[in-house]
Amino acid sequence: MVPAIRIPASAASRARNLLRTVQYTHPPSCPCHSNPSHHHHHRSPTLADHVRRHMATPTDPSREKEYAFEMAASSIRFGPGATKEVGMDFANMKAKRVCIVTDSNVSKLDAMKQAVEGLTREGIEFTVFDKVRIEPKDSSIKEAIAFAKPYNPDAFLAVGGGSVIDTAKLMNLYTVFPEADFLDFVNAPIGKGLPVTKALRPLVAVPTTAGTGSETTGTAIFDLVSKGAKTGIAHRNLKPTLGICDPINTRTMPSAVHASSGLDVLCHSLESWTAIPYNERTPRPTNPINRPAYQGANPISDIFSLQALRDTVKYLPRAVKDPDDFEAQSKMLLAATLAGVGFGNAGVHLCHGMSYPISSQNPGYKHAGYDVDHPIIPHGVSVAVTAPAVFRFTAASNPDRHLAAAEAFGVDISTVKRESAGEVLGEALARFLSDLGDQPLGLKNLGFKSGDIESLVEGTLPQRRVLMLAPNLNSELEAEKDELRGLLQESLVY
Amino acid sequence: MVPAIRIPASAASRARNLLRTVQYTHPPSCPCHSNPSHHHHHRSPTLADHVRRHMATPTDPSREKEYAFEMAASSIRFGPGATKEVGMDFANMKAKRVCIVTDSNVSKLDAMKQAVEGLTREGIEFTVFDKVRIEPKDSSIKEAIAFAKPYNPDAFLAVGGGSVIDTAKLMNLYTVFPEADFLDFVNAPIGKGLPVTKALRPLVAVPTTAGTGSETTGTAIFDLVSKGAKTGIAHRNLKPTLGICDPINTRTMPSAVHASSGLDVLCHSLESWTAIPYNERTPRPTNPINRPAYQGANPISDIFSLQALRDTVKYLPRAVKDPDDFEAQSKMLLAATLAGVGFGNAGVHLCHGMSYPISSQNPGYKHAGYDVDHPIIPHGVSVAVTAPAVFRFTAASNPDRHLAAAEAFGVDISTVKRESAGEVLGEALARFLSDLGDQPLGLKNLGFKSGDIESLVEGTLPQRRVLMLAPNLNSELEAEKDELRGLLQESLVY
Repeated sequence: MVPAIRIPASAASRARNLLRTVQYTHPPSCPCHSNPSHHHHHRSPTLADHVRRHMATPTDPSREKEYAFEMAASSIRFGPGATKEVGMDFANMKAKRVCIVTDSNVSKLDAMKQAVEGLTREGIEFTVFDKVRIEPKDSSIKEAIAFAKPYNPDAFLAVGGGSVIDTAKLMNLYTVFPEADFLDFVNAPIGKGLPVTKALRPLVAVPTTAGTGSETTGTAIFDLVSKGAKTGIAHRNLKPTLGICDPINTRTMPSAVHASSGLDVLCHSLESWTAIPYNERTPRPTNPINRPAYQGANPISDIFSLQALRDTVKYLPRAVKDPDDFEAQSKMLLAATLAGVGFGNAGVHLCHGMSYPISSQNPGYKHAGYDVDHPIIPHGVSVAVTAPAVFRFTAASNPDRHLAAAEAFGVDISTVKRESAGEVLGEALARFLSDLGDQPLGLKNLGFKSGDIESLVEGTLPQRRVLMLAPNLNSELEAEKDELRGLLQESLVY
Repeated sequence: MVPAIRIPASAASRARNLLRTVQYTHPPSCPCHSNPSHHHHHRSPTLADHVRRHMATPTDPSREKEYAFEMAASSIRFGPGATKEVGMDFANMKAKRVCIVTDSNVSKLDAMKQAVEGLTREGIEFTVFDKVRIEPKDSSIKEAIAFAKPYNPDAFLAVGGGSVIDTAKLMNLYTVFPEADFLDFVNAPIGKGLPVTKALRPLVAVPTTAGTGSETTGTAIFDLVSKGAKTGIAHRNLKPTLGICDPINTRTMPSAVHASSGLDVLCHSLESWTAIPYNERTPRPTNPINRPAYQGANPISDIFSLQALRDTVKYLPRAVKDPDDFEAQSKMLLAATLAGVGFGNAGVHLCHGMSYPISSQNPGYKHAGYDVDHPIIPHGVSVAVTAPAVFRFTAASNPDRHLAAAEAFGVDISTVKRESAGEVLGEALARFLSDLGDQPLGLKNLGFKSGDIESLVEGTLPQRRVLMLAPNLNSELEAEKDELRGLLQESLVY
């Protein structure tokens, strides 16, 4: 409508204003404007030129802060009974050959029955892989990939919890990149962390638990046994095409599973809400394809994370206590998906970072209500057990956000000082966990002793992808170790 | 983990609970359970069976209410300077031949320069179509399509406002469906309203205004001159692959454009927030591909709509009054996108429904600050002018939502009675419009007279797609006409 704004007018004020907003690190008076090679000097440079020029020629790329965030999420269909539509979805996308991915438990449930009936009704060829391992290992992932490659499906359907959906994402990835080495895409520094440069095949995810939010994210987590570390593969292209969230499918969760899955949702929302802001993350990627999905808190992820937190605080206790409370169960499935969009685009930090060694170094704890033949610390439990200590620690980075979180727990923050934000939120979390019932209030109740802390610290350090988003964490290694030690120590009993 | 829940146990309570939640219309005690042909009778039916059976065999499909909602949005990248990344995006998606779509004004702006430089830097072949008409007509759309078809690009890049992005969506659609008749996809009843059964080619949208949110929606609006109606094409598959929201690009908007674009955002958020709930919409689609994007308010669109409303009330006045307030301009660009996700998945209703005849039957009004050679009622102005009357009218359908909206305008609702919700919100809106400045406070100021109301009503009636989402509107034609007359009458002066 009008020509681009010219600088001279009220240049200084405009520039200061703009530069403040983009959190730009150079001094307002900068050499480039007197640089004869400035490719815009045939006309007075615009603010856009100004900012862009600096972005194009940073003084030290590795120290340039991020200036943009990218929001990507799967399409979500939510409704009781929606599972029966999945056959039509594959017909609509002209799929001819579908690989259904599930596990031996879910394969007996009604959700699988609906999926199979749906594809059959549409006359679509399919095969079923039902050997997904709960808490997948690289070996179980590779077995799944070996199944998918020769079948070479043109679409995937995952029916199950996070382990099933994550495994399906990787079956899809390595079917599209059959020549790739497994470590090529695994998160650095453990793997090469290469970006996924091709679109994958359609993947429809039908969650049967309300926890991981995997139906909306581009993340897949597994145990890399060879390296003795819990790691994963994360890229936007991994995210499902469509997540079908059918609350009828989560009714089959026992109360204990409702509880631990819900605690995962609680930490997804709290960690993404409190993660460092995206524009404090370094380095700024030189190609947008290298912008991580775990990019730090941003104005869109914030909306999802805070809403998911409020819903979890309100509905999780009801869903756990009353197996007939379908409304609470439905709200928790929605909260899990909202939190998935939140942390899927912002990331998680300390609770998740420490949860990996906590569950893999399990001294022998078997969580009540879990019908398995081996010791197990459910993911949600291993994540939540450090939460009170973690948010006491991170509060100083952003007291207002921690107060808002405390408020979500029903705390009247009108009289709380900002310096008490961590205390108040930590207390609210501890109370929430103990009120929920059947939760281990501290690592000691999981069988850990002070003597185990050092190896838990060592097991946490490789989780750079999430630790880099931890607010307040010291970047110097020894100091960082001390802080992790302190958090684990404080999490022994509360 | 456990077998599907069986009915007998506490069947009644479970059923009531579930049925209440799905807003299911049959009586809890229903014949199907005694029906020998019930295909699940080899075992006691689960709740899933129960619900699904009714969904599979509704007594009267046309009267069955919706039971699911689907949320789809473009990926969004937001950040000052992000426009320069667009060349790499096309390189990353392996595009070889890109059609850039813009208009004669935007083609002179820095955003276009960045787009062209980006593609050139990556050595990607492209051509530019810069003849997009502001407020497109079917003729201008067809001219654009005629340009795109022979070039047959493998990707599209739209740089401009809503008119540009909408036109690019349709160039993409008819390039992928070269044999289709133009009316095939146009919204019924004016067109055939066929669903888009194929994925379209990648479309990256770079908005240069903060208003339509078209970068996130599957909607394209235009004047169908032959039928004398403003209509459009709407399907999820039309939505851009990626929206690049670069606040530097909206700095070129004159204050008057900030204002009217922002009023469009205001109504997108208010109308989607107050639209009928998705699960009150009928009929329930028999195939998910027929589930409209304008599906009614739902728990996810609500989050976006309310946030966009709050941000608009807070930042639009600043963005309009101070051309140097880059923070307010940035927040408005984000609000426009958030509102786009909200109404793109919930819909709009009365303000938009009446805005189409208001702008097309313009008696000769030329909005101040618009540098055009013909009369023009900017879209945002034509939408907002009826807002005070509309929300006074719709409040009875859901007083709490209207009170929440009034609260977003800073009204202390603690003492307001629910029956006064409409009064209070209408008043807050009128005050907001007059405080914004340079706004016509009523249709009279646009040159309309009482005698024009009948033809405005006639021009509104064909907008079924949005009127069907209007809460409180009488479904009987004559009564509906009376209500529209009343709203327009009330909007003459305030």
